[in-house]
Amino acid sequence: MIRFDYPVKVYYKDVDQMGIVYYSRYFEYFEAARTELFNSIGLDVTTIENQGIYLPVITSHCDYKKGAKFEQEIIVETSISELPKARLKIEYFVHPKIREQTLVTGYTIHAFMKKSGRPTKVPEIILKTLKEKMETI
Amino acid sequence: MIRFDYPVKVYYKDVDQMGIVYYSRYFEYFEAARTELFNSIGLDVTTIENQGIYLPVITSHCDYKKGAKFEQEIIVETSISELPKARLKIEYFVHPKIREQTLVTGYTIHAFMKKSGRPTKVPEIILKTLKEKMETI
Amino acid sequence: MIRFDYPVKVYYKDVDQMGIVYYSRYFEYFEAARTELFNSIGLDVTTIENQGIYLPVITSHCDYKKGAKFEQEIIVETSISELPKARLKIEYFVHPKIREQTLVTGYTIHAFMKKSGRPTKVPEIILKTLKEKMETI
Amino acid sequence: MIRFDYPVKVYYKDVDQMGIVYYSRYFEYFEAARTELFNSIGLDVTTIENQGIYLPVITSHCDYKKGAKFEQEIIVETSISELPKARLKIEYFVHPKIREQTLVTGYTIHAFMKKSGRPTKVPEIILKTLKEKMETI
Repeated sequence: MIRFDYPVKVYYKDVDQMGIVYYSRYFEYFEAARTELFNSIGLDVTTIENQGIYLPVITSHCDYKKGAKFEQEIIVETSISELPKARLKIEYFVHPKIREQTLVTGYTIHAFMKKSGRPTKVPEIILKTLKEKMETI
Repeated sequence: MIRFDYPVKVYYKDVDQMGIVYYSRYFEYFEAARTELFNSIGLDVTTIENQGIYLPVITSHCDYKKGAKFEQEIIVETSISELPKARLKIEYFVHPKIREQTLVTGYTIHAFMKKSGRPTKVPEIILKTLKEKMETI
Repeated sequence: MIRFDYPVKVYYKDVDQMGIVYYSRYFEYFEAARTELFNSIGLDVTTIENQGIYLPVITSHCDYKKGAKFEQEIIVETSISELPKARLKIEYFVHPKIREQTLVTGYTIHAFMKKSGRPTKVPEIILKTLKEKMETI
Repeated sequence: MIRFDYPVKVYYKDVDQMGIVYYSRYFEYFEAARTELFNSIGLDVTTIENQGIYLPVITSHCDYKKGAKFEQEIIVETSISELPKARLKIEYFVHPKIREQTLVTGYTIHAFMKKSGRPTKVPEIILKTLKEKMETI
């Protein structure tokens, strides 16, 4: 399993009139978190895109247990537990910085696509990097 | 089944550098769409909230088939097909205004909660209205 | 002067924990409003962009008098009062649907740019259309 | 002058189909930046709000010189150079992490307001803290 802990601090922009993070904002946190997970293993999305490969989200899912609040510091634990075949699944577990209470869990599933929009197989560089990191951790 | 067609036009604010609507934006469209579905059957969320009842999202899900583009006009077909017991499920089917191609499908599941955050049963007014509308349609 | 009234309804996604529209959201409303102003006079931004011309915002400004609330219906009065030389100024006046109270006023200033990022002069089609509409109204 | 450097990394969520940060997103960065400036001098907005004081934005302004791009690391230099009388002005200068090129400059002006929406004078704790920090720096 490849894991990355992405810290987020909640600001006014994220919070709705119930005083908790608006439900779709977690998907923005997830995107930042998976971008940093990739960075942490030496992959950056810009380089991948410059090679003409895109990773569009084809499924997104989130379960909300408890809302995060303004100025709260939270962690988005992000993980990949399986090598992608046609698709890559990334999982997210959000908890307060200071303890292991579940706020939100979710996942996203990504395809591999050329700029034209046509599906493509998993680029060798991604597959190789994920494989190495899974073995070493 | 209660159904409402909510039209959306896509603007720059919604579109990412792939040239398609950013994945979390659909959840904003869904929220507007379900608010209007409620309005269409005589319920408004502000009145419900003023009675101390909130409908937080506890699950959100979206499957993306094809991305909507800038200045595209799309329809968010929104529906409730079951009376809520403890939870209310709302479904969304997004297609271009001009034809029945699937762009995105999704659902949200809502709890009923008091301002304190404690769960509460489905308010009588909501249950009664949904029931009546389901029977007449 | 060219004018267009763009109606907006405020949803949860827009409102912060003060119970009013979050300050940057008005700029999203402004973008939708100016896109529709253009559409109303026969210009669409996609066609302009397909000709390799972009209208990036170079200045944005907003003054907030009174906050719009959840489920409130508001109007973004959008206007162009001067033909662009190098730059196009668009003005916005936001008020409730039902009366002429000022909620927010603002403006955006746009440059004309090629895809390369280099400035370009105002495209003939835009200048001609704006000129005609200013004279007829 | 009180100054705080707030680092931001640009993600997909922020970038539009021109490939640069969407214009209103900078105001979200500004909000996070000023919240951290306050934190850095021992003020937190939640505590201030719990005392019934709000700092709504009454003016926002931004000038855009050059667009930040996906995965770019930028700094939001945030500063207060005058003690507030009725209003507090905060200024922002955005540049790439690695050099002093101007991307964006802007400011926000804030009022002091009670929960009721009525204006109130600058809370003593804010005034005192700002004063001390201005003198010591």
